[in-house]
Amino acid sequence: MTSMRAVSIQSDQSLTIDRIAKPTPGSGEVLIKVEAAGLNRADLVQRAGKYPAPPGASTVLGLEVVGRVESVGADTDRFTVGDRVCALLPGGGYTEYAVADEGSILPVPDNMPAAEACCFPEAVFTVWANVFDRAGLQAGEVFLCHGGTSGIGVTAIQMARVMGAARIFATAGTDEKCALAQSLGADRAINYKTEDFVDILKQDGGADVILDMVGGDYVQRNISASRMNGRIINIAYMNGFKTEVNFGPVLMKRLSLMATTLRARAADEKRRLRDALEGAIWSSVMDGTIRPVLDSTYPLEDVETAHARMQSGEHSGKIILTVGHGD
Amino acid sequence: MTSMRAVSIQSDQSLTIDRIAKPTPGSGEVLIKVEAAGLNRADLVQRAGKYPAPPGASTVLGLEVVGRVESVGADTDRFTVGDRVCALLPGGGYTEYAVADEGSILPVPDNMPAAEACCFPEAVFTVWANVFDRAGLQAGEVFLCHGGTSGIGVTAIQMARVMGAARIFATAGTDEKCALAQSLGADRAINYKTEDFVDILKQDGGADVILDMVGGDYVQRNISASRMNGRIINIAYMNGFKTEVNFGPVLMKRLSLMATTLRARAADEKRRLRDALEGAIWSSVMDGTIRPVLDSTYPLEDVETAHARMQSGEHSGKIILTVGHGD
Repeated sequence: MTSMRAVSIQSDQSLTIDRIAKPTPGSGEVLIKVEAAGLNRADLVQRAGKYPAPPGASTVLGLEVVGRVESVGADTDRFTVGDRVCALLPGGGYTEYAVADEGSILPVPDNMPAAEACCFPEAVFTVWANVFDRAGLQAGEVFLCHGGTSGIGVTAIQMARVMGAARIFATAGTDEKCALAQSLGADRAINYKTEDFVDILKQDGGADVILDMVGGDYVQRNISASRMNGRIINIAYMNGFKTEVNFGPVLMKRLSLMATTLRARAADEKRRLRDALEGAIWSSVMDGTIRPVLDSTYPLEDVETAHARMQSGEHSGKIILTVGHGD
Repeated sequence: MTSMRAVSIQSDQSLTIDRIAKPTPGSGEVLIKVEAAGLNRADLVQRAGKYPAPPGASTVLGLEVVGRVESVGADTDRFTVGDRVCALLPGGGYTEYAVADEGSILPVPDNMPAAEACCFPEAVFTVWANVFDRAGLQAGEVFLCHGGTSGIGVTAIQMARVMGAARIFATAGTDEKCALAQSLGADRAINYKTEDFVDILKQDGGADVILDMVGGDYVQRNISASRMNGRIINIAYMNGFKTEVNFGPVLMKRLSLMATTLRARAADEKRRLRDALEGAIWSSVMDGTIRPVLDSTYPLEDVETAHARMQSGEHSGKIILTVGHGD
């Protein structure tokens, strides 16, 4: 077959399954026969036309897949045909075959269900790149994780625990979600609809590192919830990019306000992150110490329903598309 | 003598010379017979009642001195009586004898005039702590220094040059000050009254590290002037702590907005900075590669005139008080 099924975005922003050309791995790339593809909030933004694929990337949605190596391009040496892997992608995951840079691929055990393994690539890369690589969370420090039951949050809580955080606080919007966050290792989950995270963190002396995707008025509240030398790292600003900031406490507490995106980074940079996180944390993912939190799975054909579930905000953990091949 | 002359702040904020008790060095401390004391903008703020001395520090103004070791306290081992030194102080510099923590002291050659040597302690510690230790300016990176002819600026430009910055930009408010900044090693000085630093930095691809003390609308302008992975570090916000910020480009360019103060840091932390900067840059200060930029010197008794000069903003480089002992 030289064509394959893939999700395509129609002009009215609806999603359909079309046939497109099966890709060929270029130099340094690997072709993966996809078993599962993860949903990310960025997919909804891209679908709405506000987050175009970076130059050179597939315009098909999907930032992560699990599957088996189908073929390898030139100048690759780590993976061979048949290896079970997961990959971070700059795009092109909602399909039967996805091309990944070799430096964005990690091994997955044969016996781990695809939907479970697919809970990890984007989340582990994102948490590593932000909480550990950029914000430098150290063993013995206090970590506050907003969106504690998002796909990122459930992984961030567990990674912080494995890496030796002294105390982990997580915010979520229902008592059920709070219970989930605590079951994953949060020492204290905070229902942001009924409690003030600033008060609770201040009682503990403040957070060393805060992972935030809310933005808006959370910018100043995170500053208030930080202790001396705290680092606040944003991976999104869902409540808005623009806000008034009082930098007085930033100066007095010697804080750092940081933000990063992952998708647009160069392949070399992703390889650097892959190597670092593989050495530090990947064995804890593969041996089940860090467990997948799977909200729901949908066949690729039900992608609209899967997106609606993410849009609702009612999910906890990852929403995964499973990809059949009829073979 | 068990008393000494020291500048004291009267209730009307005027400055007078009074006699106070000569201090005794405690454990880990050294007593310095002061030859020169440096002025810093923080002194004006403290005098105005808005920047109280940290707990345990002398309430006398003055954050840096040059002189000879007069006596040493218990648990010190590096300096001996008669050594010529300079020191960073949490307070107590505008006087005849100052107590310093041993970890905040650096050696000074016998033949370097006191007023010249006193251009360095606060500036070198501050630039090291911010531009190199916190913001991590690397060889080959682009550096933008605001306040290019301030006491901090003239030292920051020269330190960045010695540490291998690829290109150094500096802002200043007159063409004369711009010429001074370029004579110290700035590749391009920008007269902020007639030129837009954002445009000029953008033409170069943006700054990797920006040292700022302006704040206010400079917060967003610094964001615009940064390149990917840029770090903006504030040591003050002279135009205001509060400003609206659009964090969109912070996320897209993966920036870090940082701020620190030096004075309130623990003695151990200052010792860590002292050791690092002594290894990396102090020999370049002592051998004249990094030259002092001395605006003016005043006898301790003319401290009011010295403060008026700093308040005017007309100075370039350091304003120094010289301390006579009548012996």
